[in-house]
Amino acid sequence: AEVTVTGEARMGIIDDGGVNGAQFTSRVRVKFVMEGETDGGLAFGAEVRNDQSSGNGGTIDIVDTNDIDGDGNVTEVITTINNGTTGTTNGDSVVYISGAFGKLSMGDVGTAADNIVGNVSGVGLTGLGDYNELGYLGNDKTAAKYEYTSGAFTGALSVGQQYDGVDATVSIAVKYAAETFSVALGYEDADGDDQLTLGADATFGAVTAKVRVADQDSAADTRAAVSIDYVAGATTFTAFYADHGTDDGFGIGAAYDLGGGASVKGGIVDTDLGDTAFDLGVAMTF
Amino acid sequence: AEVTVTGEARMGIIDDGGVNGAQFTSRVRVKFVMEGETDGGLAFGAEVRNDQSSGNGGTIDIVDTNDIDGDGNVTEVITTINNGTTGTTNGDSVVYISGAFGKLSMGDVGTAADNIVGNVSGVGLTGLGDYNELGYLGNDKTAAKYEYTSGAFTGALSVGQQYDGVDATVSIAVKYAAETFSVALGYEDADGDDQLTLGADATFGAVTAKVRVADQDSAADTRAAVSIDYVAGATTFTAFYADHGTDDGFGIGAAYDLGGGASVKGGIVDTDLGDTAFDLGVAMTF
Amino acid sequence: AEVTVTGEARMGIIDDGGVNGAQFTSRVRVKFVMEGETDGGLAFGAEVRNDQSSGNGGTIDIVDTNDIDGDGNVTEVITTINNGTTGTTNGDSVVYISGAFGKLSMGDVGTAADNIVGNVSGVGLTGLGDYNELGYLGNDKTAAKYEYTSGAFTGALSVGQQYDGVDATVSIAVKYAAETFSVALGYEDADGDDQLTLGADATFGAVTAKVRVADQDSAADTRAAVSIDYVAGATTFTAFYADHGTDDGFGIGAAYDLGGGASVKGGIVDTDLGDTAFDLGVAMTF
Repeated sequence: AEVTVTGEARMGIIDDGGVNGAQFTSRVRVKFVMEGETDGGLAFGAEVRNDQSSGNGGTIDIVDTNDIDGDGNVTEVITTINNGTTGTTNGDSVVYISGAFGKLSMGDVGTAADNIVGNVSGVGLTGLGDYNELGYLGNDKTAAKYEYTSGAFTGALSVGQQYDGVDATVSIAVKYAAETFSVALGYEDADGDDQLTLGADATFGAVTAKVRVADQDSAADTRAAVSIDYVAGATTFTAFYADHGTDDGFGIGAAYDLGGGASVKGGIVDTDLGDTAFDLGVAMTF
Repeated sequence: AEVTVTGEARMGIIDDGGVNGAQFTSRVRVKFVMEGETDGGLAFGAEVRNDQSSGNGGTIDIVDTNDIDGDGNVTEVITTINNGTTGTTNGDSVVYISGAFGKLSMGDVGTAADNIVGNVSGVGLTGLGDYNELGYLGNDKTAAKYEYTSGAFTGALSVGQQYDGVDATVSIAVKYAAETFSVALGYEDADGDDQLTLGADATFGAVTAKVRVADQDSAADTRAAVSIDYVAGATTFTAFYADHGTDDGFGIGAAYDLGGGASVKGGIVDTDLGDTAFDLGVAMTF
Repeated sequence: AEVTVTGEARMGIIDDGGVNGAQFTSRVRVKFVMEGETDGGLAFGAEVRNDQSSGNGGTIDIVDTNDIDGDGNVTEVITTINNGTTGTTNGDSVVYISGAFGKLSMGDVGTAADNIVGNVSGVGLTGLGDYNELGYLGNDKTAAKYEYTSGAFTGALSVGQQYDGVDATVSIAVKYAAETFSVALGYEDADGDDQLTLGADATFGAVTAKVRVADQDSAADTRAAVSIDYVAGATTFTAFYADHGTDDGFGIGAAYDLGGGASVKGGIVDTDLGDTAFDLGVAMTF
């Protein structure tokens, strides 16, 4: 049982299409990867980031120092907020155990559909708002996810955190992955809504095409996205088009591998939602 | 001088006796253990967790964006909260130096009584509210603790953070630990209250019995707790009974060692305070 | 590409000159140092601390549970606060890439003047308010900094985060460093203010003298500081005097190297701003 420390970082320029124009952007993340094995051969482990929400479920008292309720009491606690991660609301942390029975994970796990079907390729250093993603219903944390793989087939089932009087999001998804193509189907049933998401990827030599279609019960229009990745030596070119129903847009980008864990990445995203966004910079893994 | 990264994690089901019934629970912690030695042979070191309260004593302004005081100003700072750990209020971090003179620690150190006398055994994956603990008066951080061990005797003295006009909690405790039994006595003197806590542990083959008695000046009744741990191969069974004066309860639990740092743990706690609580899951150390 | 985990800690006594008199002080920090090299020979890396502001730009809702606006709604969100570090406002994290062209850094980087000219020596375990520092105009994060060194000359240029309608702080600085002395000049141009800072260091055997002069446009008086470090075996004695224009003060201190990464440090600082401050304790690096 051991802990491995890994990291990722990025630095560059971003114009997110907002009022500020081009800005500097940088980020550093540390990820702790824990792995062990029981005497009986079960693998177990956990992952967490150093930017996990802090604390252990402690609270912060918000004190009305400006006496905004006019009662003359300036040391009055008006409310208390959670500061951190309790045992039942985890952020950015996952614990798992796996063996011949499959893999059971808990913590900040997305729905089975989100994990198995996923999204078409995005562009840029930062993702530029991740407009390539059609969106999943998601679930409350701590959630639980079970996965089982047999040959080319993978199945997954997830259940969100349980609260009295609320139907947790339940999701089921299956995937068939051959050497050059894969198809996947995911279903999420949330409290008062549901969504069916279909995905397919195919690789033709240097080109990989991806398509995702999402049919959400509460949405008037079906959403759809398609992406193309083209690998030319150390450079990967990516383009996507996404139709979110009420708005649509596209993105183009490129990543050039510098070796040693560093790459230059840039992208442009143009949607109905705002001005054209772009970014350019260096991404690093450690 | 080096830093070792260790971790612990857990995942499972908990019903804490509250309104939500059974819920998922998971937690991941990283602990950094720092150790060094001076040229003169003094050991020094520090420990901190990655879920330490964040920041360096900075503050967050709470802005009344909803104009709840009706003055039309929606960018008004109504109060400011502390966000993090200053040099004088540490959470989850301890620094020490030790040698022939004993060991001096500072930071998030409990009282001498809490450290030396401790508690009877608890049960479950999560501790289930730690009802086995009778409670100590505790102290403000940054606190200081001094320990000295000579043969079977250990003595400790602690002092809480000093503030003008407040008497910090001072605590003294002693312990005698032989091969199969130990007795310990701790005293805490806080501002306007004090507590004497007595503890004894004894091991008879596979069975360990523990008892703690706490006599707090401000409490009408003496509190007491007893626990039994029974080791049968890879399984440890635990039961406790605790009388908190105004309420009492008991807990039973078991832990099965899977090897490699993983174990299955579960427990049931039933007290006067609420519905029966239980948990079950896998605990891991890395 | 790899991540190295380093640490530093300190413990001791501090009287900051405030109302509480002498208090305990301790601190533990973990720093992650990431380093890599591209196939083309460019060095890249990042640094971040475990006490970095938490989260990824998430927010916390402040809920008016005490109904201070008297509308009977106790689950009303009165405001939302930022909890963490977004891609454009980094704390305590820096990313860089360097090569024959120089070194480009982004993140929580100070101005070129602050980096290149710096400050005279401070005293004590904790810095005791860092009165030795004359202050720089600083910049908003995420900032960018470029440095280039050629022989004894180092030049640097920094630009603060860009916001629409605000002139970011731009800074330029140069330094000439010979074996026993160095001179440096830094200029910062902020929105509506500017500052010129001059520095010089000289070493005569066991003695190092430093002087800094700061001329800020918006300040009536020029600020100045001078320090002397004297090394006698394992002990370094330090004294400084600083004139902040409206107030002045001095500090004296000593550090004794215990070896293995530990040292005893203490200092006294007396200024016009408050009572005499002092601290004493052990500092550790891991």
